[in-house]
Amino acid sequence: MEIDTIAAISTPVGEGAISIVRLSGPDSIQMANQLFKGKHLMEAKSHTMHYGKIVDPTSEEIADEVIVSIMRAPKTFTCEDVVEINCHGGLIAVQRILEMVLEQGARLADPGEFTKRAFLNGRIDLSQAEAVMDVIQSKTNKAMNVALNQLDGKLSRLIRKLRQELIETIAHVEVNIDYPEYDDVEEMSHELMQIKTKYVEGEIKKLLQVAEQGKILREGIKTAIIGRPNVGKSSLMNSLVQEERAIVTDIPGTTRDVIEEYVNVRGIPLKLIDTAGIRETKDIVEKIGVERSRKMLQEADLVLFMLNNNEMLTDDDRMIFESLEQLNYIVIINKVDLERKIEMEEIMKLSKGAIISTSLINDQGSTELETALSTMFFSNELSSDEVTYVSNIRHISLLKQAKASLDDAQHALALNMPLDIVQIDVTRTWELLGEIIGDTASESLIDQLFSQFCLGK
Amino acid sequence: MEIDTIAAISTPVGEGAISIVRLSGPDSIQMANQLFKGKHLMEAKSHTMHYGKIVDPTSEEIADEVIVSIMRAPKTFTCEDVVEINCHGGLIAVQRILEMVLEQGARLADPGEFTKRAFLNGRIDLSQAEAVMDVIQSKTNKAMNVALNQLDGKLSRLIRKLRQELIETIAHVEVNIDYPEYDDVEEMSHELMQIKTKYVEGEIKKLLQVAEQGKILREGIKTAIIGRPNVGKSSLMNSLVQEERAIVTDIPGTTRDVIEEYVNVRGIPLKLIDTAGIRETKDIVEKIGVERSRKMLQEADLVLFMLNNNEMLTDDDRMIFESLEQLNYIVIINKVDLERKIEMEEIMKLSKGAIISTSLINDQGSTELETALSTMFFSNELSSDEVTYVSNIRHISLLKQAKASLDDAQHALALNMPLDIVQIDVTRTWELLGEIIGDTASESLIDQLFSQFCLGK
Repeated sequence: MEIDTIAAISTPVGEGAISIVRLSGPDSIQMANQLFKGKHLMEAKSHTMHYGKIVDPTSEEIADEVIVSIMRAPKTFTCEDVVEINCHGGLIAVQRILEMVLEQGARLADPGEFTKRAFLNGRIDLSQAEAVMDVIQSKTNKAMNVALNQLDGKLSRLIRKLRQELIETIAHVEVNIDYPEYDDVEEMSHELMQIKTKYVEGEIKKLLQVAEQGKILREGIKTAIIGRPNVGKSSLMNSLVQEERAIVTDIPGTTRDVIEEYVNVRGIPLKLIDTAGIRETKDIVEKIGVERSRKMLQEADLVLFMLNNNEMLTDDDRMIFESLEQLNYIVIINKVDLERKIEMEEIMKLSKGAIISTSLINDQGSTELETALSTMFFSNELSSDEVTYVSNIRHISLLKQAKASLDDAQHALALNMPLDIVQIDVTRTWELLGEIIGDTASESLIDQLFSQFCLGK
Repeated sequence: MEIDTIAAISTPVGEGAISIVRLSGPDSIQMANQLFKGKHLMEAKSHTMHYGKIVDPTSEEIADEVIVSIMRAPKTFTCEDVVEINCHGGLIAVQRILEMVLEQGARLADPGEFTKRAFLNGRIDLSQAEAVMDVIQSKTNKAMNVALNQLDGKLSRLIRKLRQELIETIAHVEVNIDYPEYDDVEEMSHELMQIKTKYVEGEIKKLLQVAEQGKILREGIKTAIIGRPNVGKSSLMNSLVQEERAIVTDIPGTTRDVIEEYVNVRGIPLKLIDTAGIRETKDIVEKIGVERSRKMLQEADLVLFMLNNNEMLTDDDRMIFESLEQLNYIVIINKVDLERKIEMEEIMKLSKGAIISTSLINDQGSTELETALSTMFFSNELSSDEVTYVSNIRHISLLKQAKASLDDAQHALALNMPLDIVQIDVTRTWELLGEIIGDTASESLIDQLFSQFCLGK
């Protein structure tokens, strides 16, 4: 495959101080040099920055004042020559410069293509490449730590170690079969095979045990707040979306409507569903009807069902309890400052989830709610530094398949099947684990994975 | 004033490949060094880049993989030591790193404070600093060129030249008065003063002549599209917001709802008013009523009034013609492919603006509309390279005052008033021009100007 030079805008779109056009490939320095009025870039040392102007070579029109960074292969993000043109923020300058670079013969990079090159050139493996995107998309500090650990190769190292165990076992069996005369090689016994596969399976189990938590950290818990009009849903929203907890709001310039609304409760990202609806229409159950609220519930990982302490249960409420049957939910009895009219005993019978009493108007009960939330999803305090979290659904699925394959192997061992038959399952496990880090991944899988990246990465 | 070290996020907020935290000030390199795990930064050469990790010195938690750029004073944006920490895009990494930098003692930069320092340290003057923001906010290539010329100092140089003329004249008068015995100095005559002030006034007039165009290029023309239901307003919108013309849409990831909708017609940015309304409610006049559409008209620099060729005029239409009296407008008779029912003769009488016939559904008439638009606002083809465009309303206002002041001077000269009286007006002109480039600007004006900047610039 011939390697061409690619280019893309690598900063988010919008008004800001700085925007960057990034180039990668054999001609990137030469292309930048063609457009650059300042120092001659061809002799520039690696990892140096140069002030000048980007000028259209034909029209001599100035595109912008810039700082050009030169990074020479192989010590770059892609392992290729990389040039970053830092220009003024905003829409026009960066777009103009990108156009000029493309006129010089660069190709507009596909989404994720810079990272893909880093993978294809061997700087990072597939799980690390996937972590790059997780880092960018993290919604909380804890999710970021999980992604950074994965980027750092923590998961890769563990997977490699397990694959090494498996390949040694496979080799051992092969040697026994092919060279039965080598009696200095200990014979691979059913017992030894048992031990090895049990060990690997144990490690995979550990990974899967915390995987659900890793997935939650990465993707957030889809949370629906439901309840009758005037029960306090907006107050709950406001109580959750408070100060430092609302990820989206503490950064100036962020628009709530664009980025999904995440609420960070003790490090757990709650992804609120249909918040616009809750904010705008004060009577969600009434307005959307039981039918639509059921649909909303289907999407949810967690339901916060709010009731008014000061009102009696209605038939609608009872129907909602029925539809919650299969779900994770917390019942919130709000307005406990007012006279109790609600039938608490009936609720205790109806509800299989936690019941929290609050008086949100007096800021009462929110700590209890947070505790209930965190114990619901995390049995103990998260410590992402010690545990290796698998957070990616592709990895989880491969680990599950690998575990199933090892189960097969052990079943075969228990039936005393010949080792070269057992070995088929072990080899399959080895391949499945290889897909996680990309050693045995197909080209189409790789293409598909990187296409989910954002542009310019 | 003691100079501290400031820091801010300098890339737009959002998901992208790269985000940047920028520091400026005497301690910036030392602060970055405290957080950086990699090469020792204190000895790093200017304009070099270093790969490593940002690590919290107390918790030893890794914030992100980064590339740190070191730029040493004075050859930097602010003329101070500048450090740029390039980290992964997204919300968390950049926020974490900013927090760590602030914990090291940096102060969160005010909006525009980096540029303000460039101004206070004498690298750029006030009109150039204002151009920085114009560059970022430009909506079209032409607006960008105007801003870049201003950033490059084209306006500044002209203003400086005019001030030099004025100060020489003033000095000349002073010498005549203070040292009447110096007879080798030609005496400043009323005629000479007349010539000088006329020359400067002529130059200011030239600037003001094209200023309206400069302002339009910079800010866009606020354009309202009005008309009865089903007359073709959405088709017009779609015809205008087409392919390369819509500034906002040709960059992937841009959300229409957030950034104002600009349409670029032959280099002229039309800023569409209430486009959401037009898109969503198909019957704007009917829905919002004559009252609100009048209000919308008050805001507009330009009104596109659409009528249906296939329908007769209504009293509402006639009322709209009345309210357009004082405005720039173009009447668009759409659906000329259908039978003519509209009273064209009456329209010719009612309308003082251009009348364009279109059949938008057949893509007919849009070129005519574009021509009408560009002749309406620009008598001839824009050539921003030769002309110095003043686009900033503050500059325009100061130029107008300067011109008035010169008018006074000439009036005094015509009345044969003594030159030391005339000189007061000339000095005032000199001061007013100085405010444009910041030589005679007050601190509070400077503070106020920079506070309009975006963060991180």
